Amino acid sequence: MSLKTDPTLSPFFTPKGVVLVGASQNPAKLGFGPARNLVQSGYRGAIHFVSPRGGTLLERPIYTSIAAVPDPADLAVLLIPAPVVPQALQECGKRGIRAVIIASGGFRETGAEGAALETQCLQIARTYGIRLVGPNCIGILDTHVPIDTTFLPPPGPTPGDVAFISHSGAICAAVIDWARGQGFGLSRLVSLGNQVDVQETDMLAPVASDPYTHVITLYLEGVSDGRRFVAEAARVTREKPIVALKVGRFASGQKAVASHTGALAGQESAFDAAFRRAGVIRADTSEELFDWARALAWCPPPKGRRVAVLTNAGGPGVTAADALEAHKLELAELTPETVTALKEILPPAASLRNPVDMLAGATPTQYAECLRILLADPNVDSVLMILPPPPMDSAGGVARATIPIIYAATKPVVVALMGERMIQEAVEHFRAAKVPEYRFPERAAAALAMLTARADYLQKPPQEAVRVTDVDKACVARLLAEYEISLENGGFLPQTAVSQIMTAYGIPVPPVVLAHTPEEAVHLARQFGQPVALKVASPDIPHKSDVGGVLLHLMGDEAVARGFEQVVTNARTAAPTAVIQGVHIQPMILDGQEVIVGAVQDPQFGPLLMFGSGGVEVEGLKDVAFSLAPPTQAEADYLLASTWAGRKLDGYRQIPEGDKMAVLDIIYRLGQLAADFPQLAEIEINPLRVLEKGKGAYAIDIRARLKP
Amino acid sequence: MSLKTDPTLSPFFTPKGVVLVGASQNPAKLGFGPARNLVQSGYRGAIHFVSPRGGTLLERPIYTSIAAVPDPADLAVLLIPAPVVPQALQECGKRGIRAVIIASGGFRETGAEGAALETQCLQIARTYGIRLVGPNCIGILDTHVPIDTTFLPPPGPTPGDVAFISHSGAICAAVIDWARGQGFGLSRLVSLGNQVDVQETDMLAPVASDPYTHVITLYLEGVSDGRRFVAEAARVTREKPIVALKVGRFASGQKAVASHTGALAGQESAFDAAFRRAGVIRADTSEELFDWARALAWCPPPKGRRVAVLTNAGGPGVTAADALEAHKLELAELTPETVTALKEILPPAASLRNPVDMLAGATPTQYAECLRILLADPNVDSVLMILPPPPMDSAGGVARATIPIIYAATKPVVVALMGERMIQEAVEHFRAAKVPEYRFPERAAAALAMLTARADYLQKPPQEAVRVTDVDKACVARLLAEYEISLENGGFLPQTAVSQIMTAYGIPVPPVVLAHTPEEAVHLARQFGQPVALKVASPDIPHKSDVGGVLLHLMGDEAVARGFEQVVTNARTAAPTAVIQGVHIQPMILDGQEVIVGAVQDPQFGPLLMFGSGGVEVEGLKDVAFSLAPPTQAEADYLLASTWAGRKLDGYRQIPEGDKMAVLDIIYRLGQLAADFPQLAEIEINPLRVLEKGKGAYAIDIRARLKP
Repeated sequence: MSLKTDPTLSPFFTPKGVVLVGASQNPAKLGFGPARNLVQSGYRGAIHFVSPRGGTLLERPIYTSIAAVPDPADLAVLLIPAPVVPQALQECGKRGIRAVIIASGGFRETGAEGAALETQCLQIARTYGIRLVGPNCIGILDTHVPIDTTFLPPPGPTPGDVAFISHSGAICAAVIDWARGQGFGLSRLVSLGNQVDVQETDMLAPVASDPYTHVITLYLEGVSDGRRFVAEAARVTREKPIVALKVGRFASGQKAVASHTGALAGQESAFDAAFRRAGVIRADTSEELFDWARALAWCPPPKGRRVAVLTNAGGPGVTAADALEAHKLELAELTPETVTALKEILPPAASLRNPVDMLAGATPTQYAECLRILLADPNVDSVLMILPPPPMDSAGGVARATIPIIYAATKPVVVALMGERMIQEAVEHFRAAKVPEYRFPERAAAALAMLTARADYLQKPPQEAVRVTDVDKACVARLLAEYEISLENGGFLPQTAVSQIMTAYGIPVPPVVLAHTPEEAVHLARQFGQPVALKVASPDIPHKSDVGGVLLHLMGDEAVARGFEQVVTNARTAAPTAVIQGVHIQPMILDGQEVIVGAVQDPQFGPLLMFGSGGVEVEGLKDVAFSLAPPTQAEADYLLASTWAGRKLDGYRQIPEGDKMAVLDIIYRLGQLAADFPQLAEIEINPLRVLEKGKGAYAIDIRARLKP
Repeated sequence: MSLKTDPTLSPFFTPKGVVLVGASQNPAKLGFGPARNLVQSGYRGAIHFVSPRGGTLLERPIYTSIAAVPDPADLAVLLIPAPVVPQALQECGKRGIRAVIIASGGFRETGAEGAALETQCLQIARTYGIRLVGPNCIGILDTHVPIDTTFLPPPGPTPGDVAFISHSGAICAAVIDWARGQGFGLSRLVSLGNQVDVQETDMLAPVASDPYTHVITLYLEGVSDGRRFVAEAARVTREKPIVALKVGRFASGQKAVASHTGALAGQESAFDAAFRRAGVIRADTSEELFDWARALAWCPPPKGRRVAVLTNAGGPGVTAADALEAHKLELAELTPETVTALKEILPPAASLRNPVDMLAGATPTQYAECLRILLADPNVDSVLMILPPPPMDSAGGVARATIPIIYAATKPVVVALMGERMIQEAVEHFRAAKVPEYRFPERAAAALAMLTARADYLQKPPQEAVRVTDVDKACVARLLAEYEISLENGGFLPQTAVSQIMTAYGIPVPPVVLAHTPEEAVHLARQFGQPVALKVASPDIPHKSDVGGVLLHLMGDEAVARGFEQVVTNARTAAPTAVIQGVHIQPMILDGQEVIVGAVQDPQFGPLLMFGSGGVEVEGLKDVAFSLAPPTQAEADYLLASTWAGRKLDGYRQIPEGDKMAVLDIIYRLGQLAADFPQLAEIEINPLRVLEKGKGAYAIDIRARLKP
């Protein structure tokens, strides 16, 4: 474990002495809870109580002031009315306490007055160098230190290996109880409350660095600083898995809506992209959060996706096979040796193909032997074992017979126990042995899928975002600075500026060449060898198409020559005093595959890239994927692999292979641009026309909007 | 309840006397199980035992033959070795027993010999008019009659209102145990086994007609006769809800793969379409099956989608709101009266907007009062109540205070209980009161969504499939009969035949007119006013493009005239003896929206329609939907509403509104064609070009394949 942690946060978990301010002798009062829990938890440091009334509590004196508390005292828990919290913080500062949990409510969550109080607390904390957890939180506990600063009614959680960090206090109470009922223990629990100082990101490394913690679970209502969270979580997930439940999915945030990218990029796309970058596993429900956490905490990583299913009934075996395939796992192809070995111990009617169905009469010994055989098969990466309540044998016996084998195995085994009361003994055995068990095959399969995803992640070396350096950043900076002053068109940059930006960042746009005469135009059009567009070249005519200064789809010498004359005539008629330099001629690229590449600035995670099927139907087809920008190589690959637009670049039926390398290059370049210039609220290439392999890709239409 | 049921199946549930053949005195033998269960279940009819050894069992004589069994005896349960089952069936027939459960295994599931034995059993049954359940099944039970013919170890299920019909026997045992553990009772349970006679479809009405059954749950591994299942299930779901778990999702069946429709239509699309038609709710996991069944069994139907969330903590409230929105339910907008009423009883910091957060201190009385207020709000259709373990109050108290209100309500209330052991008392209360409770808000929200879907279904009157009658069925029958004899090209019909079929069924194809001279061709091309295609007209040249007899994209008099000469010359050169009648000229329709409409014959459900985005990328984009054919009006609407191709017909940005009525008409017509001619394995229009509103739609390319 190489995680560096912030030493100022250590007292929250391993204090030498804890001061409870607001301790109450009345067991019905909230202020009694932490006193009881500190004492009952078996905390071995000093426990001090403070209350203006004095007296004794749980055979300890109650001091009437923080100043009066003797050494050691390096963590304070405040459970006093909000208005007196600043005063108490001051006293903690003076007493030399540098870590404080403000459990009290009555702050930002109640309105402006509370928010002001919170700011005041932060100022005091800054003055004294105090770190604050809360306010409006349940506190922190660690079952191995052990210490419990919460006011929750006993029993607290059993010691275990799953850590829980939560923005919601109520969820903490539920999780402790749920964990106890589901038979898994917690290592550390952190309730963050209003996060006036310490935020979810700060707590990742301190919790992960705890040797008893095997997996970190998060209940997030958002993140405070998106990129910091990603960086820190990425560091942590290399050491220990993080599973996160992010709630508030449908909260409609403020949105950039001028582009397709803006319309499709939501908070959820950004969180998905951020979690992907950070290696954080995202759970969709509370149940998944802890289903997966148990498997991740208790099982070795599988070497691959090939699963053997061991069952004593066909139906649940099929259900398991379905669920495995739904999660993109494979049913292992058993070796002939395995089949032979199974045949020797199973009845003739048993199914020796995967799923291995031992039939209803399977004994604990058969379960154990088959499991041993399957685990020894080199084609098997993991095993899903199913125990329906057999009519004539006990599930408990199967648990006892198989646990030693599971324990000795270097491959993961997860168990699906069908039923409820008749399997209770087996459940207790498996839980005690830290074998993840689930009530249905579907949940067991999902857990196995997460184990496999985690193993995949660890096998791939971490990647840096791809930085593109052969860009003219200064040029774009100049351009944007100019337009930030003279914004026209509601923040949209004019096409000339947008083309210049593309060129500065090495994104090909169709060439534009100035022709001074019709003959020159004809010559150029022949060179381009495609239909061309003509646009009158004049610095004095901003809206060229309004004056008939633009002609499209011209083909053939005659049309081009005539077109040249026409746009010039049109322009002269409409603007007799304008300086006309000639006509811009540009090839029209009409073939190739049509994709979209866009970027927006996400309020939490900054630049976010989108790639997918382009054209006018982007929002209807929704064939798009997102990544943080600039992307890593794996992320850029993911953008292509997870969209039809991207897969189609490999060619499909009549559609020839597209220039994938050119697309990837443009993805990196647009990502770099979005990262370099956060003032670009939205920039979108739609379509990007992708020509055949080796022939490049061209940004045809580009929209860019500056932040207001 | 108006469900007619098959009287020959009544003895399976309400026999006057049951004969257990293969009864054993040894409690360790399978043959002891049904004896014990029949007696322990409290079955009030006669119980008879048969075994060649004779003796007594459970204070009853064991007869040595079936013939010796006294009256009444109308149901037999056979639990004897497979080879002697036919003999026993004969004896049952002679004894006048007309309902037999063959619990024994050793039949089709073991191979050809067992299958032959099974056929023999069916023949005997047919001879005597015996109905058979099984073989290789667990049996049948009814907790209200009561009767239990299974050999499962006790305890059996508690009496309840959820019925379970299963293809898997092992699942039955697990479900009984699971139900007991989860605190809900079963009404009837049917294990179908190998279904030699009685199939899942046969059991729907008999089980649904039981007054104690409120919901039917199915565990299906397939269906025996797809359309019969759909018809019967549709009849039943008008009376009582059916929730089905269909397993074997990924089992790759035999596939029609010549068309996009064939490639995309799988068993799962067919099941989805069938369940949609039949009003069957499809669960994806075992857990969902029973989560939803409890809500459907116990709650009144909601009037709409507007849900109020009542909580004492913010976090779980947000989680619930997320889950509701994910299921397309809405957070109810509370009336001002409701807000005022809540304000009076809640602390100032409470959130009076939906979710209503009463804060952690909420008392049972506050829970009850708030629930009453929310249920009275006309804007609220249902309530999701959350009970995290409150630090200072008991969840049990909340349960006791709210149950009378839930009981009296005409709107559904589902409960999410956060935690496990501390909420146990509340759980017991809710279960006893038949209030559906779930461990997490997500599961509660999903159950509420299913209740709402069920209410939606009942509100809509049942629809018949739309039959199209202005079609020339005889013409197509003639054509197909002809090609069934002289199949060329691996079953594909030639274009001329396909065009004729389209025309016979009123599906517009671009007109084809014979021109005898270049002048005539030019005249016609002018009339069409579009690029045209020319094809040499000759009955002697089957592959016209091979001889240069086809020219596309011709525009302008000169090109058409020259083209005429060219295809004729080409044809003459390649086939000097061929009779050349002239040249077929056809307008090329290049504009309009491109959709696909196809049909295949599903092995289980017959004709199946597909609609979606057309072109070459059909299988990549997968923007398609399926319905049974011919579709009902609602199904045709669904095909359009659930695909981007269909939604786009309303117009989108630059894309003008397409002729939706023409598309619907073609959907009905192709559906009728597929239903009329099951010998058409696949028929697909891709693209169907949809012109602007009022201008029709044309089948441009059509492929049709006959069954081998």
